[in-house]
Amino acid sequence: MVGPSSYFTPSRIDELAAEQRELVGRRERLLGNAYRLFYDQPVEIVRGSGTLLYDADGTEYLDVYNNVPSVGHSHPRVVEAIARQAAQLNTHTRYLNRGIVDYSSDLLATLPDGLDNAMFTCTGSEANDLALRLAKAVTGHAGVIVTRNAYHGVTTEIAAISPSLGGLDTVAPWVRVVEAPVGDGLTFVRQVAAAINELRDSPHGLAAVIVDTIFASDGVRPAPTAPGSPGFLAPVVAAAHAAGGLVIADEVQAGFGRLGSWSDAPHRFAEPASGLWGFSRHGIVPDIVTLGKPMGNGMPIAAMLARRDLVDEFGSRMRYFNTFGGNPVSIAAAQATLNILRDEQLPLNARRVGDSLRAQLRDLAHTTPELGEIRGAGLFIGIDIIDADGRPDEARTIALLNELRRRHVLIGASGLANSTLKVRPPLLFSPADADRFLTELAGAVQAVRGSSTSASGTTPRGRASEQI
Amino acid sequence: MVGPSSYFTPSRIDELAAEQRELVGRRERLLGNAYRLFYDQPVEIVRGSGTLLYDADGTEYLDVYNNVPSVGHSHPRVVEAIARQAAQLNTHTRYLNRGIVDYSSDLLATLPDGLDNAMFTCTGSEANDLALRLAKAVTGHAGVIVTRNAYHGVTTEIAAISPSLGGLDTVAPWVRVVEAPVGDGLTFVRQVAAAINELRDSPHGLAAVIVDTIFASDGVRPAPTAPGSPGFLAPVVAAAHAAGGLVIADEVQAGFGRLGSWSDAPHRFAEPASGLWGFSRHGIVPDIVTLGKPMGNGMPIAAMLARRDLVDEFGSRMRYFNTFGGNPVSIAAAQATLNILRDEQLPLNARRVGDSLRAQLRDLAHTTPELGEIRGAGLFIGIDIIDADGRPDEARTIALLNELRRRHVLIGASGLANSTLKVRPPLLFSPADADRFLTELAGAVQAVRGSSTSASGTTPRGRASEQI
Repeated sequence: MVGPSSYFTPSRIDELAAEQRELVGRRERLLGNAYRLFYDQPVEIVRGSGTLLYDADGTEYLDVYNNVPSVGHSHPRVVEAIARQAAQLNTHTRYLNRGIVDYSSDLLATLPDGLDNAMFTCTGSEANDLALRLAKAVTGHAGVIVTRNAYHGVTTEIAAISPSLGGLDTVAPWVRVVEAPVGDGLTFVRQVAAAINELRDSPHGLAAVIVDTIFASDGVRPAPTAPGSPGFLAPVVAAAHAAGGLVIADEVQAGFGRLGSWSDAPHRFAEPASGLWGFSRHGIVPDIVTLGKPMGNGMPIAAMLARRDLVDEFGSRMRYFNTFGGNPVSIAAAQATLNILRDEQLPLNARRVGDSLRAQLRDLAHTTPELGEIRGAGLFIGIDIIDADGRPDEARTIALLNELRRRHVLIGASGLANSTLKVRPPLLFSPADADRFLTELAGAVQAVRGSSTSASGTTPRGRASEQI
Repeated sequence: MVGPSSYFTPSRIDELAAEQRELVGRRERLLGNAYRLFYDQPVEIVRGSGTLLYDADGTEYLDVYNNVPSVGHSHPRVVEAIARQAAQLNTHTRYLNRGIVDYSSDLLATLPDGLDNAMFTCTGSEANDLALRLAKAVTGHAGVIVTRNAYHGVTTEIAAISPSLGGLDTVAPWVRVVEAPVGDGLTFVRQVAAAINELRDSPHGLAAVIVDTIFASDGVRPAPTAPGSPGFLAPVVAAAHAAGGLVIADEVQAGFGRLGSWSDAPHRFAEPASGLWGFSRHGIVPDIVTLGKPMGNGMPIAAMLARRDLVDEFGSRMRYFNTFGGNPVSIAAAQATLNILRDEQLPLNARRVGDSLRAQLRDLAHTTPELGEIRGAGLFIGIDIIDADGRPDEARTIALLNELRRRHVLIGASGLANSTLKVRPPLLFSPADADRFLTELAGAVQAVRGSSTSASGTTPRGRASEQI
C-alpha cells in the first residue's frame, strides 16, 4: 500500500479511468519517470480563464496554485499581443527592435535608481545562472550563500545552490547554507554574517548572497516589519558589501506585484510602495535582481537586472547571447502583462484580497487545530499544517492537497518539512474566490480529520515545494 | 579609426540617422554593452514573411542567416497554432495534457529505436545543460570532449564546454578539446581516442563526447562520406562506449531537416534518409540528442532526447522540472512546425536547393579568388573566404557581411578564424532566393575587392561565429 503523495504514483495507474489511463501510460512511456503529475488523481486541464481552470470533462477548478498566469489564465490582452506579434515578426536581439527597448524602459522605471540595465533570458534558472556568472566574474570570487531549503533553478550551476532539489549533500563546495529567517530574522542575520566571514577566510571568497525575497520554498517568510522599514535583509546587504560581495534578489516568485502594494490605496508603479518588488519591502536595493515566472503570463521570458557598472564590467570581459531571450513575441507578452498589472491595479488587489484572506485564515486557524501559523504578504501565503503536538505534519498536508483537488481547488505545498500549504493564485483572485477557497479548505480539513489515512505514510521524495 | 566589424561599434553612433541613433542610444543605455547589434549599420527589422525580412522603412532583405524560423518567418500555421493555444490554456507539465504527449509521440517516431524519451526545456543551452547533468549522473564521471571552436550554449556549465565563447582558457578542467574534423576526419578520430584515453586515466573519467553534428561554429564540417555510410563519428561512438562514456549529438543547429534529405525524392519522416537529423548522416545512434532553435519556429522550446534506461536512471536519482518547458503554447508551435516540415517536404527542398546552391557556389569560386572551399549539407553551407595566399581572411569576411547587408542580404560568419560565411536560411529557401544570393555575393566580392578598407583592421573580439 502506497501512502498519499503530492504526486501521482505510477504504480497506481490501474486505478484511473480508461481514457486517462491510456494518456498517463503514453506520457510515462514517452517522457519517462523524471516527469511527475500533481495529485494522487491527476487532473487533465484543457482550458483556463481568470482564476479558473477546466478539465477535459468541463469541471471547473479554482486555481490557488499558479503564480505564472498572474494576470489570469488566457488574459485576452496578452493573447492578442502574442498573436499580433507572432504574425508580424519573431526574431533575436541582434537586429534593432523597438519593443525590447520600450519594454526595458517601462520595466526599469519601476525599479530603484541603480538597477539600470536589463538582460533577457527565457527562464528564471537562466536568469539566476547569468546572475551568478556575473557575480563571480565581477567579484573574482566563487562563494555563494543560500538558505536551507532554497530553490533557485535547475541548470547545473543553479541546482548546486538549490538544497531543496537534492539536499545539503548536493550543494557545491563553494556554497554556504544558512537557516531561513524566522520571527524577527536575527538568527538569520547572524548566520549570514558568520557564513560571510567563513567564506572570506576561505579560498572561495564571497561572490554573492542570493535570497528569494519571499523565501517561497523555505515555507514563505515575509519581512518581519512594516514594508520599507529596514528588516532582516538590510544588515545582510551591508555585511555582503563590506566583504566585497554582491546581493542577488531572486524575484522570480516574489516579483511583479505578488506581495501586494503597501497600503489599501492605488500607487504609481515607480513608487516602492506599489509593491511590485519583494526586496522593496525590506528597504534594500540589491545589486542584481532576477525575474521570471509571471513576467510574460506564461510565455517563456525572464531577466536579470543589475547595476550598470556590473553589466559593463561583465560585458567588457564576456559575451552573452541567448537566442530566444528577449524575442519580440515574449517581449510583447511581457509588455501586455506589465500594462495589465498597472491598468487593473493588481498589486493593490493582491494587497486587499491577501490581507483579508490572511485575516480569515487566522480566524479559521483559531478553531482548527490542524492549521498553524499563517504567514505571507499580498497573495503569497503560507499555511502551516501541524499535528496535535504542533509539529509539521507532512502527511496531513499531502492529504489536504489531494482532498482539495477532489473539491476542485488546486493548491501546492512548500517548506523544509513540506508541511506548508502554499497559496499563490493569479493576482486577480477575488474576494469570492477567497471565500470559496476558505470554505473548501475548512471542508477538506474536516474530511481529512475523519479519514483513517490522514496522517499515515509519507512517500519518499514526496516534496512538492521546490519547483515552481 | 575603428576597422570593420561583424557588429555595430557603439562609438560610431553619431554616424547613424537621427531616429536610429536615438533608438540605439536608448538600447545601449538600457541593455548595456553585453548586447550587440549585427553589422556596422544596424538593421531595424519590423516584419518577416517566408525568407524575407523588412526594416522600418519597408526595405526588403533576403534572409540567408536565420535558422530559427526554419519553416519561414511568421508561417501562418504556426501563428494560428500559437494564437489558438494561448487563448485556451498555457500552463505547466504537472497537469496532464494531451498536446505534449501527442507531440512527443510524433517527434520520437522520427528518431531511431533507442531514443525513446523526451524531456523539454526552453533553450538549447538548457537542453545541453540537462544532457550533461544526465551524462555525469549516470556515468559517475565528469570528463567531456568537445571540438576546438565548439559552441553548445551559455549556462555556466555549458559555457565551460564552449571554447568559442571565451577561448581555451575558459573551458573547465574536466574538458578535453580536439580539433574539428577536416577532410576524411581521421585526425579527428585519433584525437578523440587520445582524449578519451587521457580522461580515462585521469580522476575525471569520461562522461561524454558532445558534437554538433554539422560543426557549425567550427566552420561547417559535414560528414565526409555519403549519408548513412559510416563516417568519422562511428569510431568516436565506439571509443566512447568502450570507455564507459556517452555520446551526445547536439542537433540544435543540424536538426529538423536543415541538412537535407538523402536523395532528390520524398521520404517518410521515420526513415533516416528523410534527413531530419544530422547524426543519421553518420550512420550512428547517439545516447542523447539535444534539440532547440528551429523546434518551434521561434517560440522558446528545446528538448533532450535519450535512451529510456538513461532517463530512468537519472529520474530515479534526481528531479527535473522546468516551469515553461513543454508548456502547451510552445508545444503547439512545435507540433505545427513539425507538421509543416513534413507537409511542405522542407528537408527535400533543403536537399534540392542546397545541392544546387553549393554547385553554383563552387562554379563562382572557380572564377573568384576570394572564395575558397565550399562545404555543407542541405541548407547549411560554409564558404571559406581567403586571401591571395589562400589563408583565412577575417577582415574580408567581415567586409563581405557588411557589404551584403548594404545589398539587403543578411548573412553571418563562423569558424575558428571567423572567415567562413555561414549560409543557413529558412528551409523554404527557393531557387530564386538562391539566385538572388549568388548575384549579390558576386557583386559584394567585387565591391569589397575595389574598396580600400577591404582587408584592413579586424576588431578585437569581433567573432560572430559562436552564438546562433
